[in-house]
Amino acid sequence: MSDASAPKIDADRVWRRHMEYAELGATPRGGVNRTTLTPDDIEVHRRLTEVALERGFEVSLDDYGNTFYRLVGTEPNLPPVASGSHSDTQPTGGRFDGIFGVLAAFEGLEAMADAGVQPRRSVEAVIWNNEEGARFTPSSMGSAVYVGNAELAPLLAGVDRAGETMGDSIAALRAAMPDVGHREFGAPYHSFVEAHIEQGPILEAEGIPIGVVTGIQGARKFAVEVIGEEAHAGTMPRSGRRDALVDAVAIVNSLHEIFHDEADEVRFTIGRFEAFPGARSVVPGLVKLLVDLRHPDNDLVAELGDKLLPAAQAAAKRCEVRVDESNRSETVVFGEQVPAAIIRSAEARGYAWRHIFSGAGHDARHMDSHCPSGMVFVPCEGGISHNEAENARPEDIAAGTQVISDTMFDLANGE
Amino acid sequence: MSDASAPKIDADRVWRRHMEYAELGATPRGGVNRTTLTPDDIEVHRRLTEVALERGFEVSLDDYGNTFYRLVGTEPNLPPVASGSHSDTQPTGGRFDGIFGVLAAFEGLEAMADAGVQPRRSVEAVIWNNEEGARFTPSSMGSAVYVGNAELAPLLAGVDRAGETMGDSIAALRAAMPDVGHREFGAPYHSFVEAHIEQGPILEAEGIPIGVVTGIQGARKFAVEVIGEEAHAGTMPRSGRRDALVDAVAIVNSLHEIFHDEADEVRFTIGRFEAFPGARSVVPGLVKLLVDLRHPDNDLVAELGDKLLPAAQAAAKRCEVRVDESNRSETVVFGEQVPAAIIRSAEARGYAWRHIFSGAGHDARHMDSHCPSGMVFVPCEGGISHNEAENARPEDIAAGTQVISDTMFDLANGE
Repeated sequence: MSDASAPKIDADRVWRRHMEYAELGATPRGGVNRTTLTPDDIEVHRRLTEVALERGFEVSLDDYGNTFYRLVGTEPNLPPVASGSHSDTQPTGGRFDGIFGVLAAFEGLEAMADAGVQPRRSVEAVIWNNEEGARFTPSSMGSAVYVGNAELAPLLAGVDRAGETMGDSIAALRAAMPDVGHREFGAPYHSFVEAHIEQGPILEAEGIPIGVVTGIQGARKFAVEVIGEEAHAGTMPRSGRRDALVDAVAIVNSLHEIFHDEADEVRFTIGRFEAFPGARSVVPGLVKLLVDLRHPDNDLVAELGDKLLPAAQAAAKRCEVRVDESNRSETVVFGEQVPAAIIRSAEARGYAWRHIFSGAGHDARHMDSHCPSGMVFVPCEGGISHNEAENARPEDIAAGTQVISDTMFDLANGE
Repeated sequence: MSDASAPKIDADRVWRRHMEYAELGATPRGGVNRTTLTPDDIEVHRRLTEVALERGFEVSLDDYGNTFYRLVGTEPNLPPVASGSHSDTQPTGGRFDGIFGVLAAFEGLEAMADAGVQPRRSVEAVIWNNEEGARFTPSSMGSAVYVGNAELAPLLAGVDRAGETMGDSIAALRAAMPDVGHREFGAPYHSFVEAHIEQGPILEAEGIPIGVVTGIQGARKFAVEVIGEEAHAGTMPRSGRRDALVDAVAIVNSLHEIFHDEADEVRFTIGRFEAFPGARSVVPGLVKLLVDLRHPDNDLVAELGDKLLPAAQAAAKRCEVRVDESNRSETVVFGEQVPAAIIRSAEARGYAWRHIFSGAGHDARHMDSHCPSGMVFVPCEGGISHNEAENARPEDIAAGTQVISDTMFDLANGE
């Protein structure tokens, strides 16, 4: 029931806030480096908290550093409607991935507050901690631990490259926001909707501002170690070497062959490939690889992923190979309820929309196991994301924000 | 003229000092991480300086941080005889590479001092700064700049990964040894002899303690950058990617083919291979490679090295490739004088010896362009070097040290 009383968002405010927050972790090349709970990421949480407390929103923090901003509804005992995304980025990330979903949800709350309308259910804007998994692996653990798909203790003990733990980082977040409440994991939601840039080229190419997401692609993620023996580059003959680089390249060749599909639907990426010790005159004794494998078909991802270890062991002629599956997620298909509300909202405002499938993972994947969920995509320039050149147009950010605000309002006033 | 008066070295002292200095930068796996002019490396210079000043040796330092310890001869105006090597290691280096040549030379001076014998020419033990080139590239610049094969200014401006300059590091070295003199570059030497572990398997396999080095293999060293475009691992299809990892692996495949020789005499190593930004869900936009290419035949190294750029550009299908030749050195063949003195010394002590060729580069390469030069190799376990497991036997260290001491004494008393 998107009705005449659904408030209008402030398009200038939400764009201005994107530009302002893009300064937190800004890179010389116009991108953003704001990995999880670095001082810049904590500052995003703190600034929004400051605005929220001035507005009279309730703010709370759970034990994994997820942050919740609530506009209380007229029936505050009903499970609330939530919307949100993440504030962390990849090390060479952009100005919209994640933060758009946070700021769109927060703008929804502000628009309702400005218009003086109070929905039936409470509405919440959420920052899910550590969606990118760049500083602390694995990814999407904020929503996962909230809904019970992951255990807290090992995540708190996770360390970054400098040896700092996630637990210490969360303590720093809490210290930066001393006046906020505590939130339990798993508190029920009526529904969840997440806004995000598409990170693909379809909406821009078709000139459509609103993507109604039907589901999220599954993935298997592996850490591979190739263990050989260091030797002197000038003296040790090829026949005497156990060169980890040579075997790692043979493994990559084999995987490229196995994962090649004519239809170009398999997403196979080696995002990290690093030889150690990394000195010119030393034959590498160790190579570390990170493998990311995705396809919409769960059975195919399972089958291909199972081929990785035997293929790697067969390809490595002289080195030992270790494969650790660090993350596995199934393809999720959203139910009817939230996508229907998104479509109602888009049509009520006259925005063109289309169904679209998400190749990237999002927190909405975990939320869908907790409550009816859905996502709104907006176009981004050239489909480029996880890249400092990532870009989006103010009018698309405004349209997506309006649809998120209206969808929250619709769901909060509905059954 | 290795004669009866050549003093006996103190085998216990020189071994004890190896073990003591191996603590400076000791790694948990029994190796040494003591890259150039880190506090541990500076401490090596400082401790030897302390002993030298107590002994009454003259100590001086040049503008690149090379350190000279001199026992003055009876004819101090004659060009001195020098011996030495380097105190820096690879990041995962061992307890003998480099430091053996320094401590053998220093023990030669101490043995002469203990015996109260004074050679005709002065004799010097030298620490050539930054032979490994691990913290500051390129390698072997200490001897190079001393003999005029490299320019000082750009080397002083060189930075490590943390942004510290070589110039600042040398200032820290100087500050740690305030009481030493200043040495000009290029002061003439009568001759130079360097002791080193073989870093290959031949002497150990044949049970021969002394290798008389005939020459040093040339090398060409390249830095390669493969420049593509970052993209999201879950959304960007293979056909739309400019994946720097994919093209870098194609380049490595092509180079393995081009540089493959049945005789196994070409030494082709990729010591560094690193994808950026190095996150699992980001298609790499950049890969950096370091290539090391060696062969005893200068013409063949020239020919093979010239194939690298065109081969890399042909192999890269979608990315830009940049190749920078960071270092090039010719194969050096030592003259008669120093090897003959080494052989006289070995035979006078009854040590078995053989001629041997050096696959690795050493400071003696640059010294040979300045004065008659040579090298003494001793066996190391399994030929393993540039590796924390690097090892050598006390009796071989003692034999090599005795031959260095005797050779210095022989050359210093000769014509």
